Amino acid sequence: MPVIVQKYGGSSVADLEKIRAIAKKVCRCKAAGNDIVVVVSAMGKTTNELIALAKQLTNTPSRRELDMLLTTGERITSALLSIAIHAEGHRAVSLTGSQCGIITNDRHSNARIIEVRPVRVEDELHRGNIVIVAGFQGVSYKKEITTLGRGGTDTTAVALAAALNANQCEIYSDVDGVYSADPKEVSEAKHLPEITYEEMQEMAVAGAKVLNADAVEFAKKSGIAIYARASFHPGKETVIRRDTPTEDHGVRAVVSEKNVAVVGLVGKTVTDCTLNILNAVDETITPIKELRFQCPEEHPTWARGSFVVSTATLPDWDRAKQALRDAGRQELDIEEGLAALSLIGLGINRDTSNVRQAILAMEEIGAPILALSTSRFRISLILRENDLERAQEYLHRKFVAKQNRIPPCVET
Amino acid sequence: MPVIVQKYGGSSVADLEKIRAIAKKVCRCKAAGNDIVVVVSAMGKTTNELIALAKQLTNTPSRRELDMLLTTGERITSALLSIAIHAEGHRAVSLTGSQCGIITNDRHSNARIIEVRPVRVEDELHRGNIVIVAGFQGVSYKKEITTLGRGGTDTTAVALAAALNANQCEIYSDVDGVYSADPKEVSEAKHLPEITYEEMQEMAVAGAKVLNADAVEFAKKSGIAIYARASFHPGKETVIRRDTPTEDHGVRAVVSEKNVAVVGLVGKTVTDCTLNILNAVDETITPIKELRFQCPEEHPTWARGSFVVSTATLPDWDRAKQALRDAGRQELDIEEGLAALSLIGLGINRDTSNVRQAILAMEEIGAPILALSTSRFRISLILRENDLERAQEYLHRKFVAKQNRIPPCVET
Repeated sequence: MPVIVQKYGGSSVADLEKIRAIAKKVCRCKAAGNDIVVVVSAMGKTTNELIALAKQLTNTPSRRELDMLLTTGERITSALLSIAIHAEGHRAVSLTGSQCGIITNDRHSNARIIEVRPVRVEDELHRGNIVIVAGFQGVSYKKEITTLGRGGTDTTAVALAAALNANQCEIYSDVDGVYSADPKEVSEAKHLPEITYEEMQEMAVAGAKVLNADAVEFAKKSGIAIYARASFHPGKETVIRRDTPTEDHGVRAVVSEKNVAVVGLVGKTVTDCTLNILNAVDETITPIKELRFQCPEEHPTWARGSFVVSTATLPDWDRAKQALRDAGRQELDIEEGLAALSLIGLGINRDTSNVRQAILAMEEIGAPILALSTSRFRISLILRENDLERAQEYLHRKFVAKQNRIPPCVET
Repeated sequence: MPVIVQKYGGSSVADLEKIRAIAKKVCRCKAAGNDIVVVVSAMGKTTNELIALAKQLTNTPSRRELDMLLTTGERITSALLSIAIHAEGHRAVSLTGSQCGIITNDRHSNARIIEVRPVRVEDELHRGNIVIVAGFQGVSYKKEITTLGRGGTDTTAVALAAALNANQCEIYSDVDGVYSADPKEVSEAKHLPEITYEEMQEMAVAGAKVLNADAVEFAKKSGIAIYARASFHPGKETVIRRDTPTEDHGVRAVVSEKNVAVVGLVGKTVTDCTLNILNAVDETITPIKELRFQCPEEHPTWARGSFVVSTATLPDWDRAKQALRDAGRQELDIEEGLAALSLIGLGINRDTSNVRQAILAMEEIGAPILALSTSRFRISLILRENDLERAQEYLHRKFVAKQNRIPPCVET
């Protein structure tokens, strides 16, 4: 029997009415002759409410205790969805991350899955049960409850799909797939029916919320296709799959992220600079987007470095800043109120034409670029937040909307 | 270092302010040189709110899924209390029932502890941590999450205290111990500084809310003293401990319980009568207070039986009634709106004087006794609920308040 893994995010299970609707949807899929594993997030804003409770007790709640606290959110949803499916007359069983065999390292609040042993899931499917999994969580080899960080429920779903060798993995949310830019922000944004794993990963790193990069990695390794769909509005979808090796896509999407900060620092040596900061970063789990160090010629005994942080995704940016200051003992220059604007596409950096065009475009609209970086499939510009809106609209028009006329990777 | 197990009920941890106050209290106790294990209930009405969510999905939520759902309540409290203790500058770690090694049978929603292996708790104490335990829950040998039924957090606390060979077990709630009757209902109720395990167990069975009978059983077996105290008003307390074998106590307390029903039934044989009903009882986890069957002489082929149910403690009395009707296939006569009024005391049934006095007392106030039963330390009368108030006041005055003048077990 085909195995389908479905993931429903917090807004799709925000209240009992939505949970009932999801139950009906899942039962229809089961009745159509599939084995179904459903991975759920916490209901609506539950996670934020639980964090707020903890923060009222202390500004620096322990990461282990936060994991104990937050994992209850997904467990509540999984039990309620299972009960709702029973009410529809189907068999279902809810399982925790631990019961699903999701084994992680012990890095609380941002654990990585090191192994998935879905024996129990397979047994329950074999018994004819719909399996409802509390997402976002695992168990460490020390038997501690861990969470998988932002977007962790996606990771649970795709990792389980890979371990179960599922036929497909469906990610349901309030949007019907991936767009060439955020449709709320860019009027000409186009729906993308298909993108590659790599493009999705770069988009996630650049700030797109649809699916996180770790999750896509599991699909990439196992070759499972991911379908991103809207929970309650069937129709369009985006399939995320392996690329066809021969073609370049040009710029597929423009992705933006607000609340970005650039941390600049100066130390006596590169080691001095990096090690202290990396320790602080590690302690406050600051996910660094870009990190670079250099030892400029004019100051041979001083190293200068900088990195880019996405402050909104940090559990506590104020605490992280303090830890960086405490750890650094060197000059620290933190510039906040910035934004990152990224162009994504297979092969867009095969030559420098896209980078050059992007720089020219910012000049045309008078938006200063504070930093720039590229990776294989991405060009990211750090801008002032108040330049973001028009820069985004302009880049999208220049690179994506007009793509059919002038393919950017040919143009120079 | 002395080991102290403390239990805090739902009203003691109902909000963050109370959790902070408990954290301070626990830290003082730790600073005084004790190893502390704290067992907590869900905050305030959380459990009822979660049940209400499930009931909106179906009238008959699966017991396994309810356990998955409800255990999150205690986990939230345990993580928050641990975070609050960190904020006080002490070390603490929260543990689930499973992590504490509380192994149960697989009877969901009313599991019994079959073994406690508190290895992890001991390790954490050894590391200098205050250990915060999510009460009311365990893990079955099938690795399923189970709950221990009404009062289950008490059971967690006392079972852990016994397994840890703790010096004492302290049960904190909103009352400062055990009284000779409910002070809210009986004006002359007296505080009892000391009672025996057996008396406490009989009181619990008869409807007293202070501490459940299963919990006391663990203390009785291990000989650990239980201190029942008020969380926020230190002062009086009741010690529950082994009896001094030589003395009779006479009537120590009058305990009442409302929402009682008597289920009478007639079947072809005693086996017919009992087995079907016991199956139905089992399925709906109806905790039976009294069960008796007889095969009356005038109907040699018909068995007649009855049992007493406390309807308020059932998850769903309507469902239980239906299951009894479906299972029975014999005549069923359910009388509701009743109350149980019990006299408790070591040795009160050594002769029949107390029973006789109780019957006479009800005659004096014109309250008909619908059923009567006795056990070693208890005399229970089933009355109409609207006779309960004055019957309770009258029995308390006759047996407890005047005890110093005329010890009832001497009087005839």
